[in-house]
Amino acid sequence: MKLGVCYYPEQNAEEIWQIDARAMCELGLRIVRIGEFAWYKMEPSQGMFEWDWLDRILDILHNEEIQVVLSTPTSAPPSWMIYEHPDILPVAENGISKNFGSRRHYCPNNLAFHDYTRKIVTQLAYRYGNHPAVIGWQVDNEFGAHHSVQCYCDRCVSQFREWLINRYQTLNNLNNTWGTIFWSQVYTHWSEIYPPNLTVAMPNPSQVLDYYRFASDSFVNYQKIQVDILKQNTENQFITHNPDFGTFEVDTHLLGKDLDFLSWNSSPTGQAEKFTRRLYAPWDSIPEFSYDVGDPYITGFFHAWVRGAKTKPFWVMQQQVGQTNWGEINPGIRPGTVRLWTWHAVANGAETVVYFRWRATRFAQEDYQSGLLKHDGSLGMGYKEIANLLPEAPVMQQLRDEPLSSPVAILTRFDDLWAIKIQPHRKDYDYLRTTFSFYRALVELGISADLVPYDADLSQYRLVIAPLMFIGDPDIIGRLEAYVARGGSLILGPRSGSKNESNIKVDEPLPGLLRSLVGGTINDWQSLPSDVQFAIRSEIPGLYGDVGIWTESIQPDDNEIVNILSRYLGGPMSGRAAITDHDFGAGKVYYLGFYPNHEQLKSILKYFMKSLNYEGILDLPDGVVVIQRGNHRIAFNFTRNEKTFVLDDQMVTLVPRDIRFFLRDWS
Amino acid sequence: MKLGVCYYPEQNAEEIWQIDARAMCELGLRIVRIGEFAWYKMEPSQGMFEWDWLDRILDILHNEEIQVVLSTPTSAPPSWMIYEHPDILPVAENGISKNFGSRRHYCPNNLAFHDYTRKIVTQLAYRYGNHPAVIGWQVDNEFGAHHSVQCYCDRCVSQFREWLINRYQTLNNLNNTWGTIFWSQVYTHWSEIYPPNLTVAMPNPSQVLDYYRFASDSFVNYQKIQVDILKQNTENQFITHNPDFGTFEVDTHLLGKDLDFLSWNSSPTGQAEKFTRRLYAPWDSIPEFSYDVGDPYITGFFHAWVRGAKTKPFWVMQQQVGQTNWGEINPGIRPGTVRLWTWHAVANGAETVVYFRWRATRFAQEDYQSGLLKHDGSLGMGYKEIANLLPEAPVMQQLRDEPLSSPVAILTRFDDLWAIKIQPHRKDYDYLRTTFSFYRALVELGISADLVPYDADLSQYRLVIAPLMFIGDPDIIGRLEAYVARGGSLILGPRSGSKNESNIKVDEPLPGLLRSLVGGTINDWQSLPSDVQFAIRSEIPGLYGDVGIWTESIQPDDNEIVNILSRYLGGPMSGRAAITDHDFGAGKVYYLGFYPNHEQLKSILKYFMKSLNYEGILDLPDGVVVIQRGNHRIAFNFTRNEKTFVLDDQMVTLVPRDIRFFLRDWS
Amino acid sequence: MKLGVCYYPEQNAEEIWQIDARAMCELGLRIVRIGEFAWYKMEPSQGMFEWDWLDRILDILHNEEIQVVLSTPTSAPPSWMIYEHPDILPVAENGISKNFGSRRHYCPNNLAFHDYTRKIVTQLAYRYGNHPAVIGWQVDNEFGAHHSVQCYCDRCVSQFREWLINRYQTLNNLNNTWGTIFWSQVYTHWSEIYPPNLTVAMPNPSQVLDYYRFASDSFVNYQKIQVDILKQNTENQFITHNPDFGTFEVDTHLLGKDLDFLSWNSSPTGQAEKFTRRLYAPWDSIPEFSYDVGDPYITGFFHAWVRGAKTKPFWVMQQQVGQTNWGEINPGIRPGTVRLWTWHAVANGAETVVYFRWRATRFAQEDYQSGLLKHDGSLGMGYKEIANLLPEAPVMQQLRDEPLSSPVAILTRFDDLWAIKIQPHRKDYDYLRTTFSFYRALVELGISADLVPYDADLSQYRLVIAPLMFIGDPDIIGRLEAYVARGGSLILGPRSGSKNESNIKVDEPLPGLLRSLVGGTINDWQSLPSDVQFAIRSEIPGLYGDVGIWTESIQPDDNEIVNILSRYLGGPMSGRAAITDHDFGAGKVYYLGFYPNHEQLKSILKYFMKSLNYEGILDLPDGVVVIQRGNHRIAFNFTRNEKTFVLDDQMVTLVPRDIRFFLRDWS
Repeated sequence: MKLGVCYYPEQNAEEIWQIDARAMCELGLRIVRIGEFAWYKMEPSQGMFEWDWLDRILDILHNEEIQVVLSTPTSAPPSWMIYEHPDILPVAENGISKNFGSRRHYCPNNLAFHDYTRKIVTQLAYRYGNHPAVIGWQVDNEFGAHHSVQCYCDRCVSQFREWLINRYQTLNNLNNTWGTIFWSQVYTHWSEIYPPNLTVAMPNPSQVLDYYRFASDSFVNYQKIQVDILKQNTENQFITHNPDFGTFEVDTHLLGKDLDFLSWNSSPTGQAEKFTRRLYAPWDSIPEFSYDVGDPYITGFFHAWVRGAKTKPFWVMQQQVGQTNWGEINPGIRPGTVRLWTWHAVANGAETVVYFRWRATRFAQEDYQSGLLKHDGSLGMGYKEIANLLPEAPVMQQLRDEPLSSPVAILTRFDDLWAIKIQPHRKDYDYLRTTFSFYRALVELGISADLVPYDADLSQYRLVIAPLMFIGDPDIIGRLEAYVARGGSLILGPRSGSKNESNIKVDEPLPGLLRSLVGGTINDWQSLPSDVQFAIRSEIPGLYGDVGIWTESIQPDDNEIVNILSRYLGGPMSGRAAITDHDFGAGKVYYLGFYPNHEQLKSILKYFMKSLNYEGILDLPDGVVVIQRGNHRIAFNFTRNEKTFVLDDQMVTLVPRDIRFFLRDWS
Repeated sequence: MKLGVCYYPEQNAEEIWQIDARAMCELGLRIVRIGEFAWYKMEPSQGMFEWDWLDRILDILHNEEIQVVLSTPTSAPPSWMIYEHPDILPVAENGISKNFGSRRHYCPNNLAFHDYTRKIVTQLAYRYGNHPAVIGWQVDNEFGAHHSVQCYCDRCVSQFREWLINRYQTLNNLNNTWGTIFWSQVYTHWSEIYPPNLTVAMPNPSQVLDYYRFASDSFVNYQKIQVDILKQNTENQFITHNPDFGTFEVDTHLLGKDLDFLSWNSSPTGQAEKFTRRLYAPWDSIPEFSYDVGDPYITGFFHAWVRGAKTKPFWVMQQQVGQTNWGEINPGIRPGTVRLWTWHAVANGAETVVYFRWRATRFAQEDYQSGLLKHDGSLGMGYKEIANLLPEAPVMQQLRDEPLSSPVAILTRFDDLWAIKIQPHRKDYDYLRTTFSFYRALVELGISADLVPYDADLSQYRLVIAPLMFIGDPDIIGRLEAYVARGGSLILGPRSGSKNESNIKVDEPLPGLLRSLVGGTINDWQSLPSDVQFAIRSEIPGLYGDVGIWTESIQPDDNEIVNILSRYLGGPMSGRAAITDHDFGAGKVYYLGFYPNHEQLKSILKYFMKSLNYEGILDLPDGVVVIQRGNHRIAFNFTRNEKTFVLDDQMVTLVPRDIRFFLRDWS
Repeated sequence: MKLGVCYYPEQNAEEIWQIDARAMCELGLRIVRIGEFAWYKMEPSQGMFEWDWLDRILDILHNEEIQVVLSTPTSAPPSWMIYEHPDILPVAENGISKNFGSRRHYCPNNLAFHDYTRKIVTQLAYRYGNHPAVIGWQVDNEFGAHHSVQCYCDRCVSQFREWLINRYQTLNNLNNTWGTIFWSQVYTHWSEIYPPNLTVAMPNPSQVLDYYRFASDSFVNYQKIQVDILKQNTENQFITHNPDFGTFEVDTHLLGKDLDFLSWNSSPTGQAEKFTRRLYAPWDSIPEFSYDVGDPYITGFFHAWVRGAKTKPFWVMQQQVGQTNWGEINPGIRPGTVRLWTWHAVANGAETVVYFRWRATRFAQEDYQSGLLKHDGSLGMGYKEIANLLPEAPVMQQLRDEPLSSPVAILTRFDDLWAIKIQPHRKDYDYLRTTFSFYRALVELGISADLVPYDADLSQYRLVIAPLMFIGDPDIIGRLEAYVARGGSLILGPRSGSKNESNIKVDEPLPGLLRSLVGGTINDWQSLPSDVQFAIRSEIPGLYGDVGIWTESIQPDDNEIVNILSRYLGGPMSGRAAITDHDFGAGKVYYLGFYPNHEQLKSILKYFMKSLNYEGILDLPDGVVVIQRGNHRIAFNFTRNEKTFVLDDQMVTLVPRDIRFFLRDWS
């Protein structure tokens, strides 16, 4: 189990490099990531490459037995390049070009930028493809950050047309698929087609979804340019990337396919600030400790997303060690949290944790971001905690080597996320919030879940949840039918199967292609304002109260074995089925006809898991997380209060911000 | 009494046309509107017209004895046209051109677009001007939707100058009228003048009002191009248009002048979502049932607006039959509402109700909008309700043929609406909210009101209300003087007579030209923050409490017979007159010096109407509406609870979402 | 003591000038300001100057013994000029050019505009530089209004580069200072540098601060062009300017340096509307009387800012006399307020008060702004109040001639204001709010404070407060050390000394260069969300409760005499020092480690002032202000209730909106 740190030699005097490397080594850090913003340092003017400095720092690190992840520097094209090729700058949705002066200021389809990219990556790969210090590569940095995915420049316009030609072959096919006869939008030449920006009224949702796909593909393809060069020119070095989880505009599942593993940047308090309002519903109570410790459900959600993308371990490529600089409050963190976060990452499948960053920068955009060393060179809180982690490293290593197998898979797909974003129909209906609600409920029940793409192998899971399979894709539906028929269990949430792949409404009764799985149809649905709710009743223990937001009533097919687990008691659908289960082959399909609140969802999931004879359900206090890897368990108390709970019939008490191992048959 | 439906043959396979027409006929639908988005289908490339399909569908409909309203397709110029003439696209206030990809993407002053318009309309008129199935024409669709009225393209810049030359003849005249000497804005050439966008500080309010007028006139003129062609080339076919009531940027009174009658698109739940926050004050209670039945006061307000524009019956050209797709929640509707809405429209003066739409579209922008048939072809809720309406059709026909004569007229003018929008002075002072407050109070008292333009014939009304005659126009004031002198009654609200036609403050004491009507002057006025209110006292029964928002004190002229009906008790105007009445000739003028709340306004109107010996005042529960046509009455319960009220000394009980007729002397 | 009025002869018929002048004279007005928007009237076409009208009005005024402040008309370039040189128009941050049609529509760096400016100002100076009526000049009008400072046109781009060349000499120096190596932002040619707009992510904070400085300097330099011409061509005439206090984008301290004195435009109710939400914290209670009398703490804050800029008397160049037109509510004002405002201005150091404006305009942008005469020519409320002021004029004159010496100076600097705006780190951390909180607490304690720039002479003050000396400038720190060493007292607030002049974090422990003054270091700091607060305890009477927003703990140096006056009781810094005092030479330095609430701050300041044996502390009710000039005191009751308080051991009762003098040893 190796811990690492992000380092920016180019931002420090060369005199200090050796001192820093020594100190890292002494702190037990064995990995350094460098280079992701060093394009100017590598190529200070067009075609003039300077490698001496990089040779030197790599030698220094190598001498200290520190391994290096070398990043390609393409996330920050230098000033001279933009001066030569201002067309590299991306164009915003309002048609105005962005400017140089920060980062990610490039159009992923720009040909000049592709050339520059190929040259610098090729140079790097040639020179360091066999360097003994370099164990792997990071491509670019944080694809997707700062709403930088969707570009509206002329090149993107023409590339979007190419993408469409490739997808549809004929204009006739495109027109039929998009339904352009509606509002006389029929295209008669490819060159009439533009991205869906600046329209007078809402644009065509099929066109928008294709544009989202195209923009995401542009970055997947741009990454591929770099991956191909690196693969051809390196040996025994891995390739990874750390996408940004902010806008969800680039498909991280697709990015992952071309990589050896995925990484991500974990900033628990920053992500708590940024995502709480999105992932929690307005009526949900927010963990009161999250502001200075982070929200373990949110952090874990992203761990699970990244792990699930390839169903394999991942790296935390930047682990927060103090305050962030991009939130609204940017609070300091509590003592104990860096240790907590590190263990939490490992327990969730992180193979390596790389801290961000060695020294806080005194200058430029991130001078309010903490480092292990403060601005005055003194030791920050994170430094001291990492030092304290050293004795725990062997246990961490062992934990890391255990398999992390989750009983539950939550299916995720960017197409669904985008289609719901394009047409939420009901304000605030959010794909991620829906998905997170299932994840959080499971974690609170002590159940590990993988967030997996539709093409994942489902056979290992006891339960598969499709919280919002808005688009009914025949492939995944066929695979789900096979999975359930062989004895698996499936939960489908409301709005399932509403659309086809082209973002067109199905022409069958809802839930469209999923009807045979459900054994019934949706005979009514209601989008409800926040102050309108209807009562339900149910045999499921703990499931009661009112439901709102979105409600659907299910009409079971006469020929199918369908149990009605819950019914509406009030409103226009009173008396009709709200939750059903359907025997399908050797398995079972649950249809959840409404958007449940947190306690309702916990009751539902608990009931379903118990029905599957799953015995690991826990009753955990808020902020306590228990994760199982192999036969071992690790419990976390993320709160600032002592917490007591029952584990394996034992009372367990954890002091604030502490962890406890429960090791069994440790070999 | 005919009911109809909107149909889009171009969006459906031709095989289904005959089936659809048959089904419409069986459902009792006798009218179909088609064509408003079919430009591409009619003219798939420049100058190549295709009419066979339209011939066929018209024949099919004619064979089923269904009459057709044929719409010109100009609201959605096809892609090839924009490709040839991108200058057709409108330019937004920020100077950026809009793009193709939805609808209403044209500048109303573009010459190329005028040419295309003339050609397609001429072709249509030639071919179908005597078609036996075609009973009338709809010009374009929803002028004003999507903030598409005010364009800032180069053509509009030059046309605005032409419009100004036409209005002012000389620059000197314009400079004097606008007061351009203020802030050195004096223009020395016509070509120095631009629309009032992108100014550093607020623009000149006289210039802005003229720009609003110009932009509105641009659409009135654009409609006229089509109307003239249709009139010249058709026989015995009416011409109508269905303006959008969203932005109020185009003067629907002026649009109406060139039409045989006005139509509008009624979406009660959509309009409740969109207008409640605007038309109700923050402290008003909102009908709790409006989310899934609509707000009958809002729906009725627009019925009254459209009816009043020409003081004659109108059409509902698109009647909602399920959920909308353009609101925030887009709730489903309750059983019974389609019937309720249809009767409500007829009771309010609708000659015909055309449902929107036959089939829900599976594709493109409106796939979340309901139709009578669902996406899977099954029958929607609206379908079933219309079927149930069939037995009621004869009564509906008789009701429709009765005169609808209102005792009250509420004067409305776009100039006032725009001038208040340009300079509300007090945030949220809204012309429509003010006007609606009077309308709603009257409806709750069982009193029908017409919302009429200033040039309407007032002689038929017992009471005329000018809620916000901000601009004192000598013509209407002369006519009001004549009306009152002959025995009429007039209510003037606060801020009356503040400006002249050029949006310049009057140089006389307030209320300016209205002083002789009022018999006094406004000697003080206060704009008040929301938390500041002053008490009033009054002889008017039920009128008490505090008033805020805007208060004026009235100083009666010594020589006039003026009664003080209410005085301020607190604040800087304590003791002064808040409401007066003035004997003017044989009539009476009331001046209301403050912005009353709902209960206060009801008390005031009740008192005034009783003073006029009007005997039809009712005491209706919230959500119950009673409308009189001829000697007959129809009562509606829009709520989801049983409602009991007194009508003609009888207790009447209505079950939820039901209606009751009270027919007298039915012939 | 002279009172004056703003007059716009160009907006009125010439016939009325003599009548107006006579009436002004009779009302006791002895000063008129004219000309600031009369460029068109002075130069109706390029190079054609017309002075007859100005000669005539000056003669008329002179005959009535009215002195004239003549304003250069450059704030409103006429239409013909923009038509000839559209490049004069400023460009907004989004890259879109603004339009003609209001005022302040010029780029301060445009060369054509410089030429036009030089010509008109030279003409004015030649012609009226010795005119007997003209006592002084106002340059332009309201620099800074309407966000008009920061321009992004091509000329500003190149001038920004020039400004940078001037500041940094070499690109290397600039790159090092800005830290452009971060994110590969290194510039290799000057022409690669742009203003920091439209960047993909946040721009470089050093670059942004320099751009703020450059934009401000552009107006300082533009003013200088006019000042130089006026100085060279006039005799015995003062030069002033009235900057706008809205955006704080132009450095009013620097503007003041080139002027004989500063002026400003006081609109107490307008400024209460505009600034209350910014200057008060969300949890502060707002004076309930401020809506129609204004907030005396806010008005006084700006008086103190303008007075402090040059530590000398100033002019109120536009004094509100009725409702404004640029707020959200624009309420009318209460009787007595114009008198109250006039006395308040004089007590705060205004040498002259010029009312705005003589006649309300009937036309254009400000027709809803009051004048002394109403639209119908009748007398407004302000007129009558000024008439009533006449008997008080001699006392006013005597008060004006007394020295106003404040015991406290509050240090202010635009660099700090901008740097905090660029990186608040914690949302809503606002420089002005912080500064105002100290000012208001002092006024409530009856203590006068000057808001002074860093280069002010501090020797006269008993206490100097640096509420937010974010940037640690060696010059001011050296001067503070000397000041304290000689016996002065200094309060430093949280976040002191965080940055250097280039907006780079210091590389020493916090508070950086201020450590020797503090006698300790900040060993931890926390930015806190609004709902998180920690208890403190203290020996300071009245100081208790919880603190939040921002907290720092102070570690006293072992060798220094440091008292801990307050400690944290809860949270991660529990037990550590929250307030310290440090003996430094003959004086004392207080470090305030947290952002106190209003009552806490009052307790702290009371305690510190008592420690200095200051005996003038008062216990004043909310809305009562007592100001001392020389030995005399004047007390104001700004509320609408009678107020009783103790002054010099006497009970004093003031009726609403009244003042009282306490004259001692009046000579």
